[in-house]
Amino acid sequence: MNKREQALAYHEFPKPGKLSVESSKPCATADDLSLAYSPGVAEPVREIAKDPENAYRYTNKGNLVAVISDGTAILGLGNLGPLASKPVMEGKGILFKRFAGIDVFDIEVNAPSVEAFIETVVNISPTFGGINLEDIAAPHCFVIEKALRERLDIPVFHDDQHGTAVIICAGLINALEVQSKQLESVQIVCLGAGAAGLASMRLLMSMGAKAENILLVDSKGVIHNERTDLNSYKQEFACKTAKRTLSDAMTGADVFIGVSGPNLVTAEMLQAMAPKPVVFALANPDPEILPAAAHAARDDLIMATGRSDYPNQVNNVLGFPFIFRGALDARAKEITEAMQIAAVKALADLAKEPVPEEVLKAYNLTSLAFGREYILPKPFDPRLIERIPPKVAAASKA
Amino acid sequence: MNKREQALAYHEFPKPGKLSVESSKPCATADDLSLAYSPGVAEPVREIAKDPENAYRYTNKGNLVAVISDGTAILGLGNLGPLASKPVMEGKGILFKRFAGIDVFDIEVNAPSVEAFIETVVNISPTFGGINLEDIAAPHCFVIEKALRERLDIPVFHDDQHGTAVIICAGLINALEVQSKQLESVQIVCLGAGAAGLASMRLLMSMGAKAENILLVDSKGVIHNERTDLNSYKQEFACKTAKRTLSDAMTGADVFIGVSGPNLVTAEMLQAMAPKPVVFALANPDPEILPAAAHAARDDLIMATGRSDYPNQVNNVLGFPFIFRGALDARAKEITEAMQIAAVKALADLAKEPVPEEVLKAYNLTSLAFGREYILPKPFDPRLIERIPPKVAAASKA
Repeated sequence: MNKREQALAYHEFPKPGKLSVESSKPCATADDLSLAYSPGVAEPVREIAKDPENAYRYTNKGNLVAVISDGTAILGLGNLGPLASKPVMEGKGILFKRFAGIDVFDIEVNAPSVEAFIETVVNISPTFGGINLEDIAAPHCFVIEKALRERLDIPVFHDDQHGTAVIICAGLINALEVQSKQLESVQIVCLGAGAAGLASMRLLMSMGAKAENILLVDSKGVIHNERTDLNSYKQEFACKTAKRTLSDAMTGADVFIGVSGPNLVTAEMLQAMAPKPVVFALANPDPEILPAAAHAARDDLIMATGRSDYPNQVNNVLGFPFIFRGALDARAKEITEAMQIAAVKALADLAKEPVPEEVLKAYNLTSLAFGREYILPKPFDPRLIERIPPKVAAASKA
Repeated sequence: MNKREQALAYHEFPKPGKLSVESSKPCATADDLSLAYSPGVAEPVREIAKDPENAYRYTNKGNLVAVISDGTAILGLGNLGPLASKPVMEGKGILFKRFAGIDVFDIEVNAPSVEAFIETVVNISPTFGGINLEDIAAPHCFVIEKALRERLDIPVFHDDQHGTAVIICAGLINALEVQSKQLESVQIVCLGAGAAGLASMRLLMSMGAKAENILLVDSKGVIHNERTDLNSYKQEFACKTAKRTLSDAMTGADVFIGVSGPNLVTAEMLQAMAPKPVVFALANPDPEILPAAAHAARDDLIMATGRSDYPNQVNNVLGFPFIFRGALDARAKEITEAMQIAAVKALADLAKEPVPEEVLKAYNLTSLAFGREYILPKPFDPRLIERIPPKVAAASKA
């Protein structure tokens, strides 16, 4: 079987899909069921009717996250509709469970408008302890997330924005430390001005990057103050500059963040960057430039991709399970920027600690130490669940 | 611990709630996750985008039922709101899994109107292979079910109506056989004119009961053609009669179906019924009359309740898991009356077969045979899952 056949077989056999809903309590006998259902179930019903907080005591609400999509921006595949997004949302559910013990219902929404989408999520929200928005196209995703955050008192998190931003920030902070540069002074180019790009630049600015040092580039070129085709979200980043093309922008830049598409960056562009640059080519599955080509272009760079088959994988799975774990554990009403920054710092710090034997084993490595090829923890590092959630939870109370 | 404390402890410890979402596929290694999530997951996404039917092949949709409530009619407890209904919906999920291997997401909906409730369910419907409406008050439940059945091409089933109707019909057919009476000629009194009562009377009529032999009674008394306070659903059953009270109605009746409240039926009422009556006192947890009182009133009756601690339990768990199993297996687009009648007949037939040793054991019984104290199969009878779904599936194709 080739990779494609293998992936399809994995999803189809022995039974379709990837999720199973199980009882977490005994349900073998009639006595068990008299507690789980009628008549016993009337007792927790009465307790919740008395005080809604009791839902966190007697139901799964407090450990249950909805992974919700409309399928308008599925992975790098585009707008394929809600039904086609279901395998991704089920997969996200598996990751939530595997890494943080969180139960997930994947919900694929086919709403006739942004407003209808918002109302739908609001209406089903009593079910859940948190909401993870996923694969929703910009700029709708910004409207949706803002409205839901305002209207709901449970955490709402658009992972394509904030999850990605957290991992990019953690990786970049460490990469800059290795390259002996300061976030406050580096020139940053971000290729891609959708959910991930905009949120990442905002979080970087909150952590010290300077607006005047950031150039955002979309498919039309540099986002500057003379462009008339910008939505209000891109407008925020429009600056006075003579640079027009990606090549213009890259010249002299210290940092490249790519959240766009395959093969958009050339060796010449990398060679035009400042000394000791940081290159995050995060387009999936095919990065803006492949590591081999990048390293051939110059040997003083730090390179990261979104892929597991190269060093320095920038992977959201390092973030969302642990951020939600912390938010749920703290019964946080939202996931604030302070909580995101706490996750950034905890992730960055963890990469500087010695790597335990079991992590090396899981990745068939003999050694791994903080440096150009190890700027972020590995997803299967068991210390992630110990370190990140408490920091996130603490930040929710600060 | 008393029963109440036991029920609360069951729901709270070792962790809150009753459901857990698990991966049904391997997810231990990075290789596993490269199939479950990026990049492998792109393959089923593409296949579903090509043909929506492939969602049944590569996702859990085809085995996934939404149990949806607005909490307006929770058990016998009334309108306590969506959040308070969550323990019941989680419990329903456990029953679906335990008896028919069906995965359930419980969805508690807080919608500002009936229309908003309907839109919400339509919008999230791509997620599911079927929808089980639960604990929604009449008459809203009729509007909601009708709209959803019309708009969706997956089975929509309001269990409080049709699930209850199926079990009542199966039990009554067998009880009448034991009493040597004919459905076509018996006089039926139904106390309770909500979801369960109306649906049960309709299904009984479809199976042979005569409209002119049915008296529906609500909290105001007999539903007759001079009443001006009837909604259109009750109006359907308003007949020309001089009878006004429950006592009037019971006099000379062959069958009493109670889906109302505790202790509404007296010994005198039972004594006024025709010879060899059938009494289904199904109010939960406290029936319209207790079996001991009924049997003391007369010794020629057949008595059923909704409770597991008396013979002849009329329990929806005999229906919904198997009806949905059949509908999902057949990929039926709706649950038709023919499918419900197929379930009625399969259930009634099964009660007439010899009871296997393992069922006797499960209930600590030494013998059990078709007759006045055994008119319906027991919920833990393993033959249910073998017998009912194939009949339901076959009826969907007829």
